[in-house]
Amino acid sequence: MAETVRVVVDAMGGDNAPAEIVKGAVDAVNAHQDISVILTGRQEQIRAELGKYSFDSERIEVVHCEEVIETAEHPVSAIREKKQSSMVVGMNMVKCGEADAIVSAGNSGAILVGGQTIVGRIKGVERPALSPLIPTEKGVALLVDAGANVDARPSHLVQFAQMGSIYMENVIGIKNPRVGILNIGAEEEKGNALVKETYPLLKTCPGIHFIGSIEAREIPHGGADVIVCEAFAGNIVLKLYEGVAATLLDKVKAGLMSSLRTKIGALLIKPALKQTLKEFDASEYGGAPLLGCRGLVVKIHGSSKAKDVKNAVIQCQTYKRQGISEKLKENFSS
Amino acid sequence: MAETVRVVVDAMGGDNAPAEIVKGAVDAVNAHQDISVILTGRQEQIRAELGKYSFDSERIEVVHCEEVIETAEHPVSAIREKKQSSMVVGMNMVKCGEADAIVSAGNSGAILVGGQTIVGRIKGVERPALSPLIPTEKGVALLVDAGANVDARPSHLVQFAQMGSIYMENVIGIKNPRVGILNIGAEEEKGNALVKETYPLLKTCPGIHFIGSIEAREIPHGGADVIVCEAFAGNIVLKLYEGVAATLLDKVKAGLMSSLRTKIGALLIKPALKQTLKEFDASEYGGAPLLGCRGLVVKIHGSSKAKDVKNAVIQCQTYKRQGISEKLKENFSS
Repeated sequence: MAETVRVVVDAMGGDNAPAEIVKGAVDAVNAHQDISVILTGRQEQIRAELGKYSFDSERIEVVHCEEVIETAEHPVSAIREKKQSSMVVGMNMVKCGEADAIVSAGNSGAILVGGQTIVGRIKGVERPALSPLIPTEKGVALLVDAGANVDARPSHLVQFAQMGSIYMENVIGIKNPRVGILNIGAEEEKGNALVKETYPLLKTCPGIHFIGSIEAREIPHGGADVIVCEAFAGNIVLKLYEGVAATLLDKVKAGLMSSLRTKIGALLIKPALKQTLKEFDASEYGGAPLLGCRGLVVKIHGSSKAKDVKNAVIQCQTYKRQGISEKLKENFSS
Repeated sequence: MAETVRVVVDAMGGDNAPAEIVKGAVDAVNAHQDISVILTGRQEQIRAELGKYSFDSERIEVVHCEEVIETAEHPVSAIREKKQSSMVVGMNMVKCGEADAIVSAGNSGAILVGGQTIVGRIKGVERPALSPLIPTEKGVALLVDAGANVDARPSHLVQFAQMGSIYMENVIGIKNPRVGILNIGAEEEKGNALVKETYPLLKTCPGIHFIGSIEAREIPHGGADVIVCEAFAGNIVLKLYEGVAATLLDKVKAGLMSSLRTKIGALLIKPALKQTLKEFDASEYGGAPLLGCRGLVVKIHGSSKAKDVKNAVIQCQTYKRQGISEKLKENFSS
């Protein structure tokens, strides 16, 4: 059996906490022998949820935390002041090596601040980057950075390219992943000041396969495996992806319900349509790691359900097995 | 009969020039009595295309231009050096008042440069903004700026909000349009430096209905009528819209062709699905005006077909009839 990965799951974070979070943790443990979970949060509530399921009790631990960081709280002060919160306690466990990873659906800003200040950066990494996988025609692409560092500098983007390449090669198994810089035209002279400064640095950066600019239009077509961008632009890409897909599918569904004829047609195509939806559902691909931290910090959507929690916990296993943290440390120590 | 609008159509611009461009111009003239068109470009080629159709010859004029600005040319030098190109000649006609508007599917950068330097800015407008309509669940929204000014300043964004509001109110008929600033969170303290500086200015800007930040996810849901942003971010929104919709619909179609069962279903739902496609097809909504120029400059997609050209020319009519240029001049003269 492979070495066990120990994952903290912040049981109090997200819209569906603790019920869906606890269920997802149980599902992950039941799906894989080599996963153990530490649930941080209000003991009574967690135990009440755990009571609904059967699982190997040796592999689920509950660590009671009195405090909860709410969605609307200011990230920096929340992390600083709520030392007894499920998130801060969990991050400290990752820091001390009591756990390998933390998964949270809680306050996004607090996850980013906590990741950087509690878990801490890998030596040599200037800025950890939030790096979700997004679906494409050809599979998935990694978006670095999708929200951690607005107004980033060129040197940060170069590191994003390096970290993203290591992640895609080792976690997703894409050899020599194609790195593109998000831009508004294909030519080198296109773009804003940040892109123009970063482009030549990426061209000469060793160890990555830089393919030049990628326009937003080409992302869903699978134009690059690693998409490097500043967090403001990256966050727009991530959220618009969600928004356009949801709206369009709502429209398709409404069209299907418009007459008896289309309703019959809809019944016939339902399974195929469902498969399409699934392939384009970002939650299938686990959470977004905050790449560049000393331990693994995974942010999942605030609206995460049990399935999302489960997938994110399982993702931590691959991350550990492939030694991503060690590979990142090695890359940036030189 | 309403006053005739005189529209220059750059017959040599775009992937499908001159055939589709000329056809679109003819279609527009045939659809509306109060439109006349001036086709600029290589006379022989244009006349050969015109020969295929019947139309009121009083309302289509051909102005021969020897030169053509190619897609790959550098915009600034192309505009400066190719004085006899279909684009520059057309823009000069707008400048002199010989035409009310120009529609071009040619080199995007050249259209933006030519609009600013040849047609010129309205007095008081710091930066004209490329302002396409994008489809939403509730209808359309105006995206300002989608590509004209990367690295814009806060004062530019405030003007975009004002120009966009005038356009949406008068051309699309939305009373008191809701203005949102594109951001990566809903709260006022979120965002990059530009957004944080611009937000308080929009809050106190008279004559607009500012509703705060809009996240990219909310754009397709119709969260705002005017979406104010810097061009780099705006261009990403515009192109990702196209990309996600195209990819998703390809996937739906492929799913529909996967078995006999789904093929039968597909036949039944085809008309409804087609309608959905149409509603989410940006080309249905005409071209993107370069708001803030002294005359109307409309950029259409490089891959534009006759239908797109026709819609863009017809849009010029509404623009003129509603006196948008005059309203913009009035707004910024004070």
